[in-house]
Amino acid sequence: MAIVLGENRYGKAETRLVRVARDGETHTLTDLNVSVALSGDLADTHLTGDNAGVLPTDTMKNTVYAFAKEPGVGEPEEFALLLARHFVETHTQIRAARVGIESFGWERLGPHSFRRQGDHTRTAEVTVTVEQTQVVSGISGLTLLNSTDSEFHGFAQDRYTTLPETTDRILATAVDARWRHLRDDTDWAKSFPAAVEALTAAFVGTYSYSLQQTLYAMGSRVLTELPEVAEIRLALPNRHHYLVDLSPFELSNHNEVFIAGDRPYGLIEGTVTRDDVPPAITEWYP
Amino acid sequence: MAIVLGENRYGKAETRLVRVARDGETHTLTDLNVSVALSGDLADTHLTGDNAGVLPTDTMKNTVYAFAKEPGVGEPEEFALLLARHFVETHTQIRAARVGIESFGWERLGPHSFRRQGDHTRTAEVTVTVEQTQVVSGISGLTLLNSTDSEFHGFAQDRYTTLPETTDRILATAVDARWRHLRDDTDWAKSFPAAVEALTAAFVGTYSYSLQQTLYAMGSRVLTELPEVAEIRLALPNRHHYLVDLSPFELSNHNEVFIAGDRPYGLIEGTVTRDDVPPAITEWYP
Amino acid sequence: MAIVLGENRYGKAETRLVRVARDGETHTLTDLNVSVALSGDLADTHLTGDNAGVLPTDTMKNTVYAFAKEPGVGEPEEFALLLARHFVETHTQIRAARVGIESFGWERLGPHSFRRQGDHTRTAEVTVTVEQTQVVSGISGLTLLNSTDSEFHGFAQDRYTTLPETTDRILATAVDARWRHLRDDTDWAKSFPAAVEALTAAFVGTYSYSLQQTLYAMGSRVLTELPEVAEIRLALPNRHHYLVDLSPFELSNHNEVFIAGDRPYGLIEGTVTRDDVPPAITEWYP
Amino acid sequence: MAIVLGENRYGKAETRLVRVARDGETHTLTDLNVSVALSGDLADTHLTGDNAGVLPTDTMKNTVYAFAKEPGVGEPEEFALLLARHFVETHTQIRAARVGIESFGWERLGPHSFRRQGDHTRTAEVTVTVEQTQVVSGISGLTLLNSTDSEFHGFAQDRYTTLPETTDRILATAVDARWRHLRDDTDWAKSFPAAVEALTAAFVGTYSYSLQQTLYAMGSRVLTELPEVAEIRLALPNRHHYLVDLSPFELSNHNEVFIAGDRPYGLIEGTVTRDDVPPAITEWYP
Repeated sequence: MAIVLGENRYGKAETRLVRVARDGETHTLTDLNVSVALSGDLADTHLTGDNAGVLPTDTMKNTVYAFAKEPGVGEPEEFALLLARHFVETHTQIRAARVGIESFGWERLGPHSFRRQGDHTRTAEVTVTVEQTQVVSGISGLTLLNSTDSEFHGFAQDRYTTLPETTDRILATAVDARWRHLRDDTDWAKSFPAAVEALTAAFVGTYSYSLQQTLYAMGSRVLTELPEVAEIRLALPNRHHYLVDLSPFELSNHNEVFIAGDRPYGLIEGTVTRDDVPPAITEWYP
Repeated sequence: MAIVLGENRYGKAETRLVRVARDGETHTLTDLNVSVALSGDLADTHLTGDNAGVLPTDTMKNTVYAFAKEPGVGEPEEFALLLARHFVETHTQIRAARVGIESFGWERLGPHSFRRQGDHTRTAEVTVTVEQTQVVSGISGLTLLNSTDSEFHGFAQDRYTTLPETTDRILATAVDARWRHLRDDTDWAKSFPAAVEALTAAFVGTYSYSLQQTLYAMGSRVLTELPEVAEIRLALPNRHHYLVDLSPFELSNHNEVFIAGDRPYGLIEGTVTRDDVPPAITEWYP
Repeated sequence: MAIVLGENRYGKAETRLVRVARDGETHTLTDLNVSVALSGDLADTHLTGDNAGVLPTDTMKNTVYAFAKEPGVGEPEEFALLLARHFVETHTQIRAARVGIESFGWERLGPHSFRRQGDHTRTAEVTVTVEQTQVVSGISGLTLLNSTDSEFHGFAQDRYTTLPETTDRILATAVDARWRHLRDDTDWAKSFPAAVEALTAAFVGTYSYSLQQTLYAMGSRVLTELPEVAEIRLALPNRHHYLVDLSPFELSNHNEVFIAGDRPYGLIEGTVTRDDVPPAITEWYP
Repeated sequence: MAIVLGENRYGKAETRLVRVARDGETHTLTDLNVSVALSGDLADTHLTGDNAGVLPTDTMKNTVYAFAKEPGVGEPEEFALLLARHFVETHTQIRAARVGIESFGWERLGPHSFRRQGDHTRTAEVTVTVEQTQVVSGISGLTLLNSTDSEFHGFAQDRYTTLPETTDRILATAVDARWRHLRDDTDWAKSFPAAVEALTAAFVGTYSYSLQQTLYAMGSRVLTELPEVAEIRLALPNRHHYLVDLSPFELSNHNEVFIAGDRPYGLIEGTVTRDDVPPAITEWYP
């Protein structure tokens, strides 16, 4: 029996970049949080402290800022591809690079004035190895609520079950979704809003008997409408809204007054996939 | 010398209420975080543990939910007034009630479907005493950015000053504003968006030589356009965006690539007021 | 009626400073978060953008770091006094300086090795005007719990009251306290732990009929044991622990199994003071 | 090509449990955050909304509270094993249960008085399938700092490298570690503090040429001292402390005054393993 080094990677996390593109009076704003992780032939630094193969994480940060100037950022998936390929192509000891980007939206108020949107964060996670490339797009923080058209009954019961069945409840969730692409040259600017539109439309349009059913509807809608997507993973917290018992105050409550609960919450996680796609080259969702 | 009880109050903080109003198929959603604080003749519980005057904070929570059913919530200022008056009017030992409300916006997606907006939180803080009433409206989290039209120079210097003067910088802030009303019967549904519009327009339209100047422009614009407002307090973090030095990479950087800093940040706080308004009945901003 | 500038101040918030003092092999670590706010003759920058009186907030940051080197930091109250006096003494347009410090504790593991403590944050808030000085010490995040010796009954009731009376409950709170000193030359290194010890001992030793009673016991204990303290303000969230109803599972629950609630929570705020102390020169707690 | 359901699971996250064990006057406190996730034969609810196999997440919450009463909680690993086995054994459609627990420490102040510790969170993550059992223990938030005995030089360079080499720097990290056990009947109460002691001692005792080297030293120390551990995964943020340039103020700075940076930060992740252990039955770290 020996003690050995297993899987490892290192990088610079959360490099905050704001890029202003100036086209005369009219500016365009890109606001990103970029994380880089590299892996490869890195045993020496772990075992002996010999850093000959270690590109400093400070250099990764510099590279993010320099590439933001030239060639510029473009869509998050594009910028992540650019960066990930750079590290693998320019350093032979680096066998794989993973670049994750959070992109924060800003609404235009004027030629060079903006208001930050807060209703979701767009994500991109790109993995480039010496042989393969994988692009995963995503969204987090998209909070959706149906105030009716949600039931939950006919469920399994045991001695610890006290939940009453319901034919009318609030269904609310903060969508966290990641979808893996089949190709690395998709039209990212078109694909992302199409995915968000599909997710939202499926949530709104599904008469729900369980959040699992809604999850599957959302995932399959994305696959149906976006042929470029291989599979999609959804993590949907069930943000419980508890009906308040107003009977002590001689008041009725026909699904009108709710406590918005913090914890605990349900958590429904699932993948919807095509049955003929190649496997992922690495774990692709958090 | 004796040790004595000074100012005190108590209450229930952060009661989370979601109210669905059902008008046939079409639902309306109100999403609030309600905090109640009462003060008055409360020495006994502090000094001896005699709770005869103490209305339980649990009762405050129940009252929030019961009032949400009947008479219903309306605008945040209205609901806060209703609650605060109730406590002062029904319990003689309560001399003052303060009700603070955070209101979270949801965008309509369908007759009973909604997406949470995340770009700001609306606030209302009402104080009712046996003699007076004070209404303060507000906003937090409204994040604005001008990518040019901001200068900073001609400032005071001392031996610790190293900041270069600039004639072109990013100006960004997350607006935290509270404005005190002259009356308690304003059209709240009209007043709030008008205030936000004034704040935003002044930020966008001011060519800025300091964030203080922008603050004053924002405050005075609200007072100019909303005669119902007595005074306004703004707390504006200066969210620094640092220009990246790309010269080591033989790249120029004409205000294109920035580091978005977290800490430290500037913090500019100021009040803009009318010179003839009655004083506040209590401290009115956090 | 005219629109005029009211109270204002500006500064640099949250300058993060770590100071290592090296006494041979043995190092000492100080870890601070320093916020500076200045006020005075600052109308010009608000009204016209003339910054002649505005010392840049960047200079405040530099001053924090330079003073950390020389003369060094010492106790948080000392360092805050040093900084606040510097700004008022060296810039005539500055009439008042407020310096707030959060101090994070580290436990020694070796001559130059440390583990961060997480059980509380020590605070100091100093206000220096051209005429007066005020020192406020404090603590936040000190979380205390008694699993018995707490009752709550005999309280006021109305139509919205449903809370049952109890003679045995958990009492838990996260202490947020600020105490104002009579002098500016107290032995800060001795005073702070004495205050924490008094707060903790009073919480532990009080058989409680209300959190208000415990609050008063804590505050008066500090005043009794620390003659250097003029008054103390406590803000105590009542962190509710709800007894779980296990009867559906044919299990008893004699105060053994609790839900730790997040929201809503009670919030008890009160000041304990001496009846003969001079008034504060400015609002002195958040 | 067809669209199909892939991997999925569901559960109740973050059930907050406080358990008081009363041994006469002397109480013992356990404070846990419990998350349950089940997987198995759950296609129906996704595809048709038929919930016959779905044990409500509300029932999982009830089970946590009921089991806390009887048989009681014990060590986090024990309680997680108990819960996970229960779900798999009592519901045939459930093929795997994963129970994650965060345990918050409280220091005793008296027979029934406690102060919450904040310097780390202990974790346990147990996976039980119909055939196998896996126990992973862990810690998060353990923040360690060496103020010297850390160098970083001899690293790879490219055109984007500007970092100067250093022979003396601060090394600071917040340890996030998970270690997988070989057995499910270890003495958990002894094993956890031994692991923390090994991690801490290795951090303190390693003269470091890279954080990777320190990571490997920490991991191998745990494996050396705890024969019950199969492998360990460490995620170590490199919490940069930047030396302040005080030369503009004619002051020296021999590693005395530092900026504690927030973002970006380095992130070093690695596994240290034994070369002869059976593989994990599922991904075992976040």
